[in-house]
Amino acid sequence: MKELSYNTEDPIAALATGWEESAIAVIRTSGTDAIELAAGVFSNKDGLRSAEGGTIVYGYVLDPETGARVDEVLAAVFRAPRSYTGEDSVEFFCHGGIPAVSVVLSALKKGGFRDAAPGEFTMRAFVNGKLDLTRAEAVHEIVTAKTAKAHSLALNRLSGALELRIEDLKRRVLDMLSSVELLLDYPEDELDGQAGEYPLDVQAVENLCADVQRLADSFKAGKVFRDGVPAALAGRTNSGKSSLFNLLLREDRAIVSEIHGTTRDYIESWITVKGIPLRLFDTAGLRNSDNPIEAEGIKRSGEVIADAGIILYLVDAVCGLNEEDRTFLDRLQGEERLIRLWSKIDAIPNEGAYDEDQVPDGFIPISSLTGEGLAELEKALAEAALGKKGLDDTVVIDSMRQRDLLQRAATALDKTRSAAEEQAPLDAAAMELRDALDAMGEITGEVSSADILNNIFSNFCVGK
Amino acid sequence: MKELSYNTEDPIAALATGWEESAIAVIRTSGTDAIELAAGVFSNKDGLRSAEGGTIVYGYVLDPETGARVDEVLAAVFRAPRSYTGEDSVEFFCHGGIPAVSVVLSALKKGGFRDAAPGEFTMRAFVNGKLDLTRAEAVHEIVTAKTAKAHSLALNRLSGALELRIEDLKRRVLDMLSSVELLLDYPEDELDGQAGEYPLDVQAVENLCADVQRLADSFKAGKVFRDGVPAALAGRTNSGKSSLFNLLLREDRAIVSEIHGTTRDYIESWITVKGIPLRLFDTAGLRNSDNPIEAEGIKRSGEVIADAGIILYLVDAVCGLNEEDRTFLDRLQGEERLIRLWSKIDAIPNEGAYDEDQVPDGFIPISSLTGEGLAELEKALAEAALGKKGLDDTVVIDSMRQRDLLQRAATALDKTRSAAEEQAPLDAAAMELRDALDAMGEITGEVSSADILNNIFSNFCVGK
Repeated sequence: MKELSYNTEDPIAALATGWEESAIAVIRTSGTDAIELAAGVFSNKDGLRSAEGGTIVYGYVLDPETGARVDEVLAAVFRAPRSYTGEDSVEFFCHGGIPAVSVVLSALKKGGFRDAAPGEFTMRAFVNGKLDLTRAEAVHEIVTAKTAKAHSLALNRLSGALELRIEDLKRRVLDMLSSVELLLDYPEDELDGQAGEYPLDVQAVENLCADVQRLADSFKAGKVFRDGVPAALAGRTNSGKSSLFNLLLREDRAIVSEIHGTTRDYIESWITVKGIPLRLFDTAGLRNSDNPIEAEGIKRSGEVIADAGIILYLVDAVCGLNEEDRTFLDRLQGEERLIRLWSKIDAIPNEGAYDEDQVPDGFIPISSLTGEGLAELEKALAEAALGKKGLDDTVVIDSMRQRDLLQRAATALDKTRSAAEEQAPLDAAAMELRDALDAMGEITGEVSSADILNNIFSNFCVGK
Repeated sequence: MKELSYNTEDPIAALATGWEESAIAVIRTSGTDAIELAAGVFSNKDGLRSAEGGTIVYGYVLDPETGARVDEVLAAVFRAPRSYTGEDSVEFFCHGGIPAVSVVLSALKKGGFRDAAPGEFTMRAFVNGKLDLTRAEAVHEIVTAKTAKAHSLALNRLSGALELRIEDLKRRVLDMLSSVELLLDYPEDELDGQAGEYPLDVQAVENLCADVQRLADSFKAGKVFRDGVPAALAGRTNSGKSSLFNLLLREDRAIVSEIHGTTRDYIESWITVKGIPLRLFDTAGLRNSDNPIEAEGIKRSGEVIADAGIILYLVDAVCGLNEEDRTFLDRLQGEERLIRLWSKIDAIPNEGAYDEDQVPDGFIPISSLTGEGLAELEKALAEAALGKKGLDDTVVIDSMRQRDLLQRAATALDKTRSAAEEQAPLDAAAMELRDALDAMGEITGEVSSADILNNIFSNFCVGK
């Protein structure tokens, strides 16, 4: 830990809530002498000094130089090891707004705290054994989650589900390694009743390797939930793109954009389908925009479609397929990201019904007017984003670091399997198993270096 | 209180921090049964139920329908009357980010809380006698303060300075009213030794009226600190506007823009001079912008200058005044918002010095290169914003409601003074004094109606 760029001895302070105008702001402090230093800038010094852990003291933060009151606050006192960081800690609940936060932070700095680096509180929690690295990373993932589902997957990791899964995989590797090392330390002629038996079961190694690989592969799903998938609406003019766009927005799924006001541009919007965040682009918007150069609009449309993880191609059921549609669809033939929609089925002049036989193969019939076909579309969207199997496990990773380490472990286990198959010398198998074990130890932080920690925690927000 | 559009019986919940991504978010609840309802959505139910006031309990918020964990939180328990609202209250410190906050709020609503209306927590604090109206309004003013000085003035009001001042003025009115009413109730012939003496001292009424008027007038200063003053840099091309703009930004005063990233447009920026927020416009930027139609740029320049509370007009000391300068300056002749600057004094070819006699009357010599003249400029800016007297009292109002009521009281007192001067019948004086008293009672909330309260608290942010 000695090369860590964070000095874990310093008392630190940081704003843990946002800078925007709000009722309350929380300023966190931590360090061995955090309570005494906090008392130095607090009106009710003895109250703070004598406060039990997990209690709240009312008072004013004072400027330690002038003694002037800088804000009215509640101070929550936490005593080691029962705190987030495992150190003594005081959290100030002060008024929201930039000036209130600025003056309190400034008083704390005059009082002996330094600004915390990104992720420094969580890093101290890790260093002090409060969290393993999978949980520490989950803290960041929870905060940056885009949808309730992504949040729930990260909360599951924070609760230790991933740590347990890794520990279980590690135990299985360790059992194999033990039996191999036993034979390496005590060659078979010294052991009773094991003569000639190769200590690794090929099938068991293969199963373990598959389990590790499956967890590594869950990164794809994790990333879908974390970053979302760009989905483009395409089709000829008047094929019903804008109506479908509006239908998808209306369906109470646009949680992110509703709350956050991210949708400034009318041609794109975040929606959530079965917990998956989708960034929906209406390429019609691009073409019909005020851009005077129409060619530019078409070019941008093309780029959106090229980059889209999902393409919803609409064909007007009343007009049917034409040459332009066929050219477009042929180009994307066989791509899993393509969803074909037979739109405006409500407009077919057939006494309100439509003939299912007339829907071309692979097309989903849909009406943005009546909502018919919406359930099938949702299913298709989820499949295009996550694959046919969908999310088949509640333990999913969304950290590239974890994915790379799991991949390293899976590769090492695959080599172990080959060695077992060939009944190769045990040294080689032992080396691979040790590598798999190291990789997994690095995931939970059992094995860690200053570089690894700096890398992980520097991505965090300040105050976490 | 019965017509209040807020129902003070309901258990309420609201996010008290911002929606943006952050380490921690705080969700406030309040209501007679808030602790029991909170226990209903909390993993450690008995811990919460038995928690003493001012203590913190660790646990998970659960979805009351599925029992699933929705976030890991700390729950701070406050018991009536020792809480912000004066009711039982639980504050949840959950993870920041939209999904975490959304799922916790949703669990609380399923658990029996309703969304709090803007300012509803503070309104309950007022209704329950925790705060008078001047302090309640200060809560909002603290949060929306733009600079540390504005925050400090609002904190002073929150600490009760304005309430005390109003109480003192009210006491003086009440004393006068008592002596008048004594004579009305017991005509002079019934009282000993007071025959023929008019019960009001003209000078005392005049002094009281002046004190009330001064407090009403402090609204101007309060508004300057709260809203800031638009200040425009004007002058011919190359008169040094951009250099001065940069100098003023560099001088460690741009606290708001630094933190908040408000300065997206290079032609304007918030700066703070002697605690006064100034929104500085460089009209040079307007003219030299990429706008292809130069006339449009000049028109916008003109509008900025017309709306500016302060105009800094620069004349290049090397070139001196020309016809264009004189035309501009003549138009603003005598306006207090005009500050004339004799700029680039460092460039005068006079061995580095400049001849003070050559500076035209009323101009401040300044060099953006050396910083010479900056102190005088700051003084002039503060005077232009606040007047020559500056801020001569630590008790300042920035609420238009308070200003209007104080003005009503001052007018009533002025009429009382006239009545006293003319030794008019006492009924008229008594009526005016009662009106002054009512107006001041309305300021602190001693007298209040549902309309008044709805008006005040609907401006607050949610969660406050």
